[in-house]
Amino acid sequence: MSRPPGPTSGSPWPHPADFAAPPTSADLARWDEADRAARPRRLDALRDRMTREGVDGYFGVRWEHMRYLTGLPFDEGEVTGSGDSGKFLITGTESIVLADSRYTLIVQRDAPESRLFECYNALADRWPDLVAAAGVTRVAVEAMSIPHLTWERLEAAAPGVELVPVDGWVEAIRQVKEPSELERVAAACAVADRALASLLPSIRVGVTERELALDLEWRIRTGGAERLAFDVACLAGAEAALPHGSPGPRPVRGGAVLLFDFGGQVAGYRSDMTRTLFVGEPAERDLAVYQVVAAAQDAVFAALADAVGPAARERGAPLPDGPAMDALARSIIEADGRWPVYGHGLGHGIGIATHELPGLGRRSVVTPLPSPTVFSVEPGIYLEGETGVRIEDLVVLDQAGGRSEIVTRFPRGVVLVGG
Amino acid sequence: MSRPPGPTSGSPWPHPADFAAPPTSADLARWDEADRAARPRRLDALRDRMTREGVDGYFGVRWEHMRYLTGLPFDEGEVTGSGDSGKFLITGTESIVLADSRYTLIVQRDAPESRLFECYNALADRWPDLVAAAGVTRVAVEAMSIPHLTWERLEAAAPGVELVPVDGWVEAIRQVKEPSELERVAAACAVADRALASLLPSIRVGVTERELALDLEWRIRTGGAERLAFDVACLAGAEAALPHGSPGPRPVRGGAVLLFDFGGQVAGYRSDMTRTLFVGEPAERDLAVYQVVAAAQDAVFAALADAVGPAARERGAPLPDGPAMDALARSIIEADGRWPVYGHGLGHGIGIATHELPGLGRRSVVTPLPSPTVFSVEPGIYLEGETGVRIEDLVVLDQAGGRSEIVTRFPRGVVLVGG
Repeated sequence: MSRPPGPTSGSPWPHPADFAAPPTSADLARWDEADRAARPRRLDALRDRMTREGVDGYFGVRWEHMRYLTGLPFDEGEVTGSGDSGKFLITGTESIVLADSRYTLIVQRDAPESRLFECYNALADRWPDLVAAAGVTRVAVEAMSIPHLTWERLEAAAPGVELVPVDGWVEAIRQVKEPSELERVAAACAVADRALASLLPSIRVGVTERELALDLEWRIRTGGAERLAFDVACLAGAEAALPHGSPGPRPVRGGAVLLFDFGGQVAGYRSDMTRTLFVGEPAERDLAVYQVVAAAQDAVFAALADAVGPAARERGAPLPDGPAMDALARSIIEADGRWPVYGHGLGHGIGIATHELPGLGRRSVVTPLPSPTVFSVEPGIYLEGETGVRIEDLVVLDQAGGRSEIVTRFPRGVVLVGG
Repeated sequence: MSRPPGPTSGSPWPHPADFAAPPTSADLARWDEADRAARPRRLDALRDRMTREGVDGYFGVRWEHMRYLTGLPFDEGEVTGSGDSGKFLITGTESIVLADSRYTLIVQRDAPESRLFECYNALADRWPDLVAAAGVTRVAVEAMSIPHLTWERLEAAAPGVELVPVDGWVEAIRQVKEPSELERVAAACAVADRALASLLPSIRVGVTERELALDLEWRIRTGGAERLAFDVACLAGAEAALPHGSPGPRPVRGGAVLLFDFGGQVAGYRSDMTRTLFVGEPAERDLAVYQVVAAAQDAVFAALADAVGPAARERGAPLPDGPAMDALARSIIEADGRWPVYGHGLGHGIGIATHELPGLGRRSVVTPLPSPTVFSVEPGIYLEGETGVRIEDLVVLDQAGGRSEIVTRFPRGVVLVGG
């Protein structure tokens, strides 16, 4: 299904079997082993940073970092009720994970290289013992995540231990992906591809956004994903103009767009894809908007392919930066001139979290993209009260390997449904 | 199904039709209107506190508070990617809600009484304008939620505005429930009751925890809940000894327990219930453990009923405190003496969040329980590597109304499945 096919091209729908099969238990075991093998290198990278910055401890509270550095498979949902369990302290030689009685067995099983430190929702009370047991005196703390009041209490509890506010240290390490991380993102993409392909025949005028969102979620979660990456967005017609709308009781209508933004999680790694479908007879304006968005996305894909191609490699050119890719996509929409440019960023890194580094927005850092990495490319045009189109794909970028690969494989061209 | 029926009593299973029907669209409209009508009173309660504490602004960042005070229906999932959207500033006369371009329409629709303040992930840059527009100079800030680094940046951005770290102000207001809040918690309980009743015939030896958890989730979400209150726990046999275990690929076995801990959300309010079922022929030890846990729970129910009964009212007795109820449940298990007492707390308030005030644990505040309120009573006994039993119900307590009512209605007695 090449792009752009005309709406009357009669392109066949993609079929679930077009995409990679769900992960097997052998895959899951292999990835688990890859994580275990990689954790020492991940910790080494953090310890290098600690040494450079002159701290002897790193106190972490973010669930993404717990998972990446210790193996503890917490996510947003688990962290809410876990008290202080899962928070961790990395020293030059040790990884120490906090847990209360509800979590001690889970920590021992899933974070086997870490020392367990019992702590029941009384972090400040236990802090002096923790830093003494760890033998640290100058501790970097994840200051964009730790609450202000907790910080103040830790400072008061052990005045001899200096707290250093830091942000982005582990994020910077996580944005460079290991092979098994990229494999899992691609596997999560395939689960999502298959789910949407299998849903297509169910899309009919009159079905509600909420019903379709739940149906798609079900297909993702019974089709190989351990959970969703985030709540499925399914937005019909003018609702698609809300870049962060939620599915409601609104029915799908003919002659309008239907936008799905969704992703799955496989072995801790996530996918994220947006497809804007056409229900019944497409409106000319909607098709025209679609073509402009697609052209903006294609321009970015071409630039990324060039950036890792032989010519760029030969002249030792650095990878482009995120804001440059965002500006490129915007320039295509602005050059067309008929509709407003999207207000969000062009894209974001993805992995353990749905949104991580690198950023590809106007305000993202102006440094060459990392490599190997994976991020979304998701330009859009939103006409308030009328219609909206966004097309989002994930790209794996690997400079050394000369690879720029779109790992979301569901066709990007015009797809007609509900006819 | 009275308690304790013997395992061979042949008690009939509860049937979905035993429980209240799902909410109608008229219910949803009524609750929406009730929230709108209640918001001025909720804001007044907060402003009283602000006056008493000598601040002229309250800066909030928690999604529960956004929903309660402004109407913006964010939850854990939405907050993750919303940047600064939804954060809010309450003054003596105004409610101001921050939003970036992705959320402005949503804020205008769902928080209609609030003034919109545009802010795109650059809170510190916009802070001077915000406090100037609001005319505030001494601002209470939710210091157990705002990140330390954000606090520091706000302080630096507007040195003339004093930030006062506060915690628990809105939580204290939220623990006293309005009638329509209690109705919604009960409605969420009924959705969960019906879902589990409808699941019973599907429980068979060999089905996995994960399959049953997903099946139960599906029944909750297609049976009247807008979302889960939290991920369904389904734990078979020895796994039930993990108070916070996750469903895995483990099959249900005969002669062992099967624990479900789950809840739904209806119109923004949540339920939470645990049932420990017996698969096939119950083990004597498991039945004995169950009876002790049930006796501990019954003792608490009796004490709560007494506390709002005519005798207590006549002598003007205050309601008991949370730690006293926890101690009562523990004393029953300790008096039996055969098994260890649960390591978690006896219970927690519930409403917009799954866990809120009041607390009924050993470390909770020693003040009379609020009224009217609703909280869980969930004693348990956990035998590591062997078995676990927890029974959890929600109780509405209303001193003035003389009401102590268990609003989770699924039978609490021994239920045999998979036979």
